[in-house]
Amino acid sequence: MFKEDLQKRIEHVEELLRKYSVTKDNEAKILFEAMNYSLFAGGKRLRPIMVLEAFNLLNGDESFIAEAFAASTEMIHTFSLIHDDLPAMDNDDYRRGKPTNHKVYGDGIAVLAGDSLLNYAYENIIANIKKSNYKDRCLEAMAVLTNAIGPFGIMGGQTADLINENKKDVEISTLKFIHEYKTTIFIRACLKVGAILAGANNQQVEALDKYGHNIGFAFQIQDDILDVVGNSEELGKPVGSDQKNDKTTYVKLLGLDESKEEVKTLTNEAIKIILDEFGRDKAKFLIDLAEYLKNRTK
Amino acid sequence: MFKEDLQKRIEHVEELLRKYSVTKDNEAKILFEAMNYSLFAGGKRLRPIMVLEAFNLLNGDESFIAEAFAASTEMIHTFSLIHDDLPAMDNDDYRRGKPTNHKVYGDGIAVLAGDSLLNYAYENIIANIKKSNYKDRCLEAMAVLTNAIGPFGIMGGQTADLINENKKDVEISTLKFIHEYKTTIFIRACLKVGAILAGANNQQVEALDKYGHNIGFAFQIQDDILDVVGNSEELGKPVGSDQKNDKTTYVKLLGLDESKEEVKTLTNEAIKIILDEFGRDKAKFLIDLAEYLKNRTK
Repeated sequence: MFKEDLQKRIEHVEELLRKYSVTKDNEAKILFEAMNYSLFAGGKRLRPIMVLEAFNLLNGDESFIAEAFAASTEMIHTFSLIHDDLPAMDNDDYRRGKPTNHKVYGDGIAVLAGDSLLNYAYENIIANIKKSNYKDRCLEAMAVLTNAIGPFGIMGGQTADLINENKKDVEISTLKFIHEYKTTIFIRACLKVGAILAGANNQQVEALDKYGHNIGFAFQIQDDILDVVGNSEELGKPVGSDQKNDKTTYVKLLGLDESKEEVKTLTNEAIKIILDEFGRDKAKFLIDLAEYLKNRTK
Repeated sequence: MFKEDLQKRIEHVEELLRKYSVTKDNEAKILFEAMNYSLFAGGKRLRPIMVLEAFNLLNGDESFIAEAFAASTEMIHTFSLIHDDLPAMDNDDYRRGKPTNHKVYGDGIAVLAGDSLLNYAYENIIANIKKSNYKDRCLEAMAVLTNAIGPFGIMGGQTADLINENKKDVEISTLKFIHEYKTTIFIRACLKVGAILAGANNQQVEALDKYGHNIGFAFQIQDDILDVVGNSEELGKPVGSDQKNDKTTYVKLLGLDESKEEVKTLTNEAIKIILDEFGRDKAKFLIDLAEYLKNRTK
């Protein structure tokens, strides 16, 4: 039942990405190809799903604006993956079971494809805000989003990740900084964006923010766990790469059992917060989603 | 006289960059350092000067919003230079007489510093639009700006530049595409942004757009000329690199004399357009600027 709900949402997002993605048969044609190669390489589409879920949970008006923001969050997520995979960063050859962008198009085009997805995400949002009757909400949502992506957000997290990559003595506070900014802040932003666009009050935004914080952390810890116990075929990427790269992970610092326990605790808290604020009927999908992510194997 | 006018404007821009740039003493401190290393490495500050000049020419209200946009255009320009200098792109070791960003901070941080400057430029604009009484104008200006930067703008130009870099048979139409999108569209956008923020009518925006088109092209051709006849000490970068890299340039396709003639023609046209629309008094600085750029040696 949940899997069907999720699949329906994923298909909706795929449709939105086809609608909002761009291509042009000009001298820079290969740039558009590279952008779309990674944008349509699959993935869980969690971020746009969260934008839309928060928006619908609060009965938002003007679904087109939530849809534009949603599509743009996936473009931004794809941008961050393309740059993260570069030889200058994580130097990954595979992503979602397919060769990474730079392996197909070369490092230069991959840099530009990432840049273009980030920039076009905002271009797309602005074009749609111009048509909205709720410009103040839209600008507030865009402020939250841009902040989560920039140097105070995921780019700060990626920096901390990069400079601590080969260190043997990374502290838990640093690891938490990396997780907070590399992953969690974006997930929180997606939920807040959807809520703000729907005109949510502060308490509602805050509940979604806390939920996002918890499942974001749980998600990242689960990533670390799967790198140890996962199946590389299911994951679409090699396992054991963290250990190979001598990367500090939750599993390395806390051990496997305590890491699993932490995922459980964070998930249960997330469910309680969302349940208390919105009730089981309305929050059903987000509750199921938290459970699903806790138990995911890929 | 003009040099003093220009210097005053450059100093104003430097002040704005100090005001709008960011730093933070956290785990990602080095990211902010890298962003500011390149942002404060000097340069002509032409793009923010054009935003402000168009805005003032049209007696715009709310100078803070023009200033925020102006500062952001320089952040975006710096982002494009940092990525353009990467080994995956032009592989340049020096920029403005100083080691390029990746030579100081490494390729990974340079990628992230570029990303962060692009993203923060928009973050900064959005934070200021929220305070403006002219939100529609601001959104229109931001639509023009984002379009000029993305895949339909400079990123498309950089792509065409990259894929044609080592080709021996590049056609003039391709070279024009590269110049149009790599350089000119951004200069045009800066002038249009300033005009739109000031509430200009279509005819005024169009005159500035044409002026920008002409001086943008003249600027790029002059760049090609200086790579042949320039002084590497004045330029702060080695000359002859285009020939060394077997790059197709205006000089290579048209010869030095015809290239110089083209710079003159484009400049004279630009001056006529702006003079006809705004008169000598108001347009004085932009007229002098066009002359100055035509005669520049660095």
